[in-house]
Amino acid sequence: MHRSLLAPALGAFLSLPAAMSPASAQQRFPSSVGDLAVETVASGLENPWGLAFLPDGRMLVTERPGRLRLVAGDGKLSAPITGVPSVTGRGQGGLLDVTLDPNFAQNRLIYLSFAEPRAGGNGTSVARARLNERGTALEGMSVIFRQMPTINSNMHFGSRLVFDRTGALFVTVGDRYSQRDQAQNPANHIGKVIRIRPEGGAPADNPKKQGWQTEIWSIGHRNVQGAALHPDTGQLWTAEHGARGGDEVNTPKAGLNYGWPVVTYGIDYSGAKIGEGTTKAGMEQPLFYWDPSIAPSGAAFYTGPVWPAWKNSLFVGALAGQMLIRLSTQGETVTGEERLLTTLGERIRDVRQGPDGFLYLLSDAADGKVLRVRPAR
Amino acid sequence: MHRSLLAPALGAFLSLPAAMSPASAQQRFPSSVGDLAVETVASGLENPWGLAFLPDGRMLVTERPGRLRLVAGDGKLSAPITGVPSVTGRGQGGLLDVTLDPNFAQNRLIYLSFAEPRAGGNGTSVARARLNERGTALEGMSVIFRQMPTINSNMHFGSRLVFDRTGALFVTVGDRYSQRDQAQNPANHIGKVIRIRPEGGAPADNPKKQGWQTEIWSIGHRNVQGAALHPDTGQLWTAEHGARGGDEVNTPKAGLNYGWPVVTYGIDYSGAKIGEGTTKAGMEQPLFYWDPSIAPSGAAFYTGPVWPAWKNSLFVGALAGQMLIRLSTQGETVTGEERLLTTLGERIRDVRQGPDGFLYLLSDAADGKVLRVRPAR
Repeated sequence: MHRSLLAPALGAFLSLPAAMSPASAQQRFPSSVGDLAVETVASGLENPWGLAFLPDGRMLVTERPGRLRLVAGDGKLSAPITGVPSVTGRGQGGLLDVTLDPNFAQNRLIYLSFAEPRAGGNGTSVARARLNERGTALEGMSVIFRQMPTINSNMHFGSRLVFDRTGALFVTVGDRYSQRDQAQNPANHIGKVIRIRPEGGAPADNPKKQGWQTEIWSIGHRNVQGAALHPDTGQLWTAEHGARGGDEVNTPKAGLNYGWPVVTYGIDYSGAKIGEGTTKAGMEQPLFYWDPSIAPSGAAFYTGPVWPAWKNSLFVGALAGQMLIRLSTQGETVTGEERLLTTLGERIRDVRQGPDGFLYLLSDAADGKVLRVRPAR
Repeated sequence: MHRSLLAPALGAFLSLPAAMSPASAQQRFPSSVGDLAVETVASGLENPWGLAFLPDGRMLVTERPGRLRLVAGDGKLSAPITGVPSVTGRGQGGLLDVTLDPNFAQNRLIYLSFAEPRAGGNGTSVARARLNERGTALEGMSVIFRQMPTINSNMHFGSRLVFDRTGALFVTVGDRYSQRDQAQNPANHIGKVIRIRPEGGAPADNPKKQGWQTEIWSIGHRNVQGAALHPDTGQLWTAEHGARGGDEVNTPKAGLNYGWPVVTYGIDYSGAKIGEGTTKAGMEQPLFYWDPSIAPSGAAFYTGPVWPAWKNSLFVGALAGQMLIRLSTQGETVTGEERLLTTLGERIRDVRQGPDGFLYLLSDAADGKVLRVRPAR
């Protein structure tokens, strides 16, 4: 990908603070806690995929073709940060998620997931690097995880990155679409939830069952593109793209099997049946599933002060569904569903809570945006 | 209401077996267990509300303006059965639910809920009568329950009738819209789940807490129009119309408070806040809620042989939502939602499982229908 050579000029051109646009400021949407306003914080991002807030309030945002930028609160986009890994920027592949080290304030380390071009194909990989003080370059990059085997496919990279409370890093890796049966094979990294140390390698407390790759946390996943830690329990929650009618919410536990493609509530988009049914001994049931599919991507538990009634609600973006889902939760139960921004008409790729307690979304489009959701005035 | 004087002629006119209509036979709808076909079993029913299968396979169907008919498998409508109670057939009121005595095969007793015209207003009442052998008349009718006090309102009658395993009869009674605060007052029957003996009066094992009317099972309900017993546990499950964004599924337990209008996930249709929030000590949380509202009416657990994957799924009709909801359940948890028949364009008032294992629906319309849902061929 050579687009990044052009990007500094584009970045300057696109730095209008779109939040000041009257059109976007007037969008109001009903919700259970009063009308919401959706403001455009930044635009001109090409298929933005992952968003992470820096301690200073700026955002790191990936663009799928292979760029990483800083987005300021006034919507200004930085020039692309140099030193990002090369990516396979085709289909669903590219530069994907970004997250900060738990000690970023001290070490300035960040983590990127990406579709890595390799001999014979590609695969999801995770790199770690230091963001320089000026925020213009990544330094000292190392690849700390490579999904194996390499497959020649442009689909189902998974790729969310979430640190747990022990300092280990969850990486969700997809089934590469063509390899779905391998999601049941613990000898590889296809269709798994991975858990690694921040410098690479398996933590001591991974399941490491006989025949399992040591980096594997759980198996039987199709394509997890939403992941968040529960704010009270520290449990990982995931939102997974299912087949037609089989999008799932799970709470992946160490060493368990989440069933894909043997048990699923979905069917092939062709209409063909998949696997053996919806239940099987030794395979976990989802906590909740959607049918028709919404295509979930991005997940965040709400913990902020702006909407106290939404404390511990799980927000999930919807690509095909073009809305923001709020699931109310109690323990490990989904107790309600609210469908928000249903008339916004945007594919939602990621959702995060900002340091201001508002919700921030990425819209998946050639002219993608950072959107801020706040109470309407 | 004097329409019933015309009805025998209308009934003859409308007795075409609509299931043979090519148009209706061609309607196909996707589902998680393959395409569904929706066939019109009978039409020409004016706002049908409740459906009960007789042992011989025929259906008793109420029409809200105040008629009760037998519907044969070929779609023929009987003349209105004589001897039904007079009803307040305005607004949401009229002849509402119908259910059979558990010993109907021996005693031919049936139960009807209805908006009863009374001095100063109206209220939900329940009558019991014997269906004569020819199925043309009700005999020996007695009113076994009257919701008190009488209110002058055309709204929120509730009215589902469900026998539990002990032989007691649950009656869901609404908050009459204008009386919502009374749903918290156990000294009356406004906004409650009622449990009575089939001859009237309170069973010995009702909660009968201090200050509670003896017929009350649970309090704090707005307008429950879907109710069914869980096939394995015998627990009552209800689907309740909430305010905007607050439709609920509950499993009402003896003596508990379900919160309306103090706690709710809904808001007024004006946009105004209701009550104190979504949670409060001493008030039960719903098992699941919908936002936006779907307006649930009718509920049935599936236990038939046609779709084994749907065993113990709770089907709920949607009026405003114009679809059939399937909730997969595990214990007292909702684990998934499937939205079916979303392009049918019918308000679904009731849903029942037929003796053939297919699903039967009532469409709420001036020319309402009995619809049968079966696998598409």
